[in-house]
Amino acid sequence: LSDNFLSKAKIKWIRSLQHKKYREEMNQFVIEGEKMVKEALNDASLEIVLLASTECLSYSNNVGEFYQIDQQTLKQISSLTTPNKSLAVINKRKTAINHYPKLVLAVDGVQDPGNLGTIIRTADWFGIQVIICSFDTVDCYNQKVLQATMGSWNRVQIEYHSLNDILPQLNKPIYGALLNGTPLQKTTLTHEGILVVGNEGQGISNAVEAIVTNPISINGFGGAESLNVAVATGILLHELTKVS
Amino acid sequence: LSDNFLSKAKIKWIRSLQHKKYREEMNQFVIEGEKMVKEALNDASLEIVLLASTECLSYSNNVGEFYQIDQQTLKQISSLTTPNKSLAVINKRKTAINHYPKLVLAVDGVQDPGNLGTIIRTADWFGIQVIICSFDTVDCYNQKVLQATMGSWNRVQIEYHSLNDILPQLNKPIYGALLNGTPLQKTTLTHEGILVVGNEGQGISNAVEAIVTNPISINGFGGAESLNVAVATGILLHELTKVS
Repeated sequence: LSDNFLSKAKIKWIRSLQHKKYREEMNQFVIEGEKMVKEALNDASLEIVLLASTECLSYSNNVGEFYQIDQQTLKQISSLTTPNKSLAVINKRKTAINHYPKLVLAVDGVQDPGNLGTIIRTADWFGIQVIICSFDTVDCYNQKVLQATMGSWNRVQIEYHSLNDILPQLNKPIYGALLNGTPLQKTTLTHEGILVVGNEGQGISNAVEAIVTNPISINGFGGAESLNVAVATGILLHELTKVS
Repeated sequence: LSDNFLSKAKIKWIRSLQHKKYREEMNQFVIEGEKMVKEALNDASLEIVLLASTECLSYSNNVGEFYQIDQQTLKQISSLTTPNKSLAVINKRKTAINHYPKLVLAVDGVQDPGNLGTIIRTADWFGIQVIICSFDTVDCYNQKVLQATMGSWNRVQIEYHSLNDILPQLNKPIYGALLNGTPLQKTTLTHEGILVVGNEGQGISNAVEAIVTNPISINGFGGAESLNVAVATGILLHELTKVS
């Protein structure tokens, strides 16, 4: 088609989605890279608003608009230093799971996109379907978060709430990953619960610590002051999913 | 002192240590940032060849040369986008532990500096004193690795070897983290052993897999294809250190 090119307005719109503010205003986000876009194209439940690629992609999924673009245009719309073939604009999902499953993960103030992405991937590995993040946790639609999930971004439902408001309403034991909690080996874990993990430097905030019913710690034997938050999440989910 | 400035030759030498080749030739490496340098200054067993800082630091440790420098010089010698006050050149340690402890971690081809750094930090948390890396694992003196260890770089001895040559000599069970190993819950772990973890994408190489005596897997329940290697290391060290 002769008019099959990306207009300046569309380029501006795609670029604006690199900012959380616009992602929230429009309820849309961007995924990038050949692998991620192909995964999305294989998921019929996703609403792909726009697809742009330097390759001619075939797909059975419903795609709003498709643009075959050159490398220069890809560089213009990409947030990656090394853009990789394809990019898609996607509508955020509406909440699919309205009841909370037995085991829920809550993230309190994690800042590093790589850490949140790895936490999402780890949760997916252990079959966690819902993650509740505090408002000050990094946005899960941040491109670095999406990339670090290694494909799990599309399998875990992520919500942002005030943890103090929502967690007590779930009526489950609230396990908090703390440096001075009860050692894991001395804790009897239940098959139902919420696991709360905290910020990289500060841990769980004071306000959220106040609603933790079961503070737990991972036994350490060496000199390190703490564990990386994604590593700690992995160990605790491993223990909690053993029980169920 | 009037001649207390960094010569061009010294700047060149410090910058050259950003490359593995020169770190190996000179048996030296660089640490950066206020916190890391202060930790090093508190460790009398480290040989600090040169210290440069925008602040006047006091220290009791033996320091070869000290230069108070301006921000511009710091930028010249730093590998960080946001240099942070201090930098030091350190002599690599000679091997301190000649006997291998009961539990040893082996790293086969991990490429990402952040992952290796987090693995070192995790090992330190669990009291692992020696890590053996394959030659194709990222260099542990890479600045990004050092930063990601969060201070543990100085507490764990890291050696580079051919894993196929050295591991069988240790006469311990060799646990390999594999996707198709025996599920952790069905394995009886011993208090002595070597845990081998592999490359981010490929896992443990075929050659090293051949010497694994106990292939193990972490039970997963969700859609993720694999766990991050540092997260997997954390879960497996958690299980192995429970036994001892």
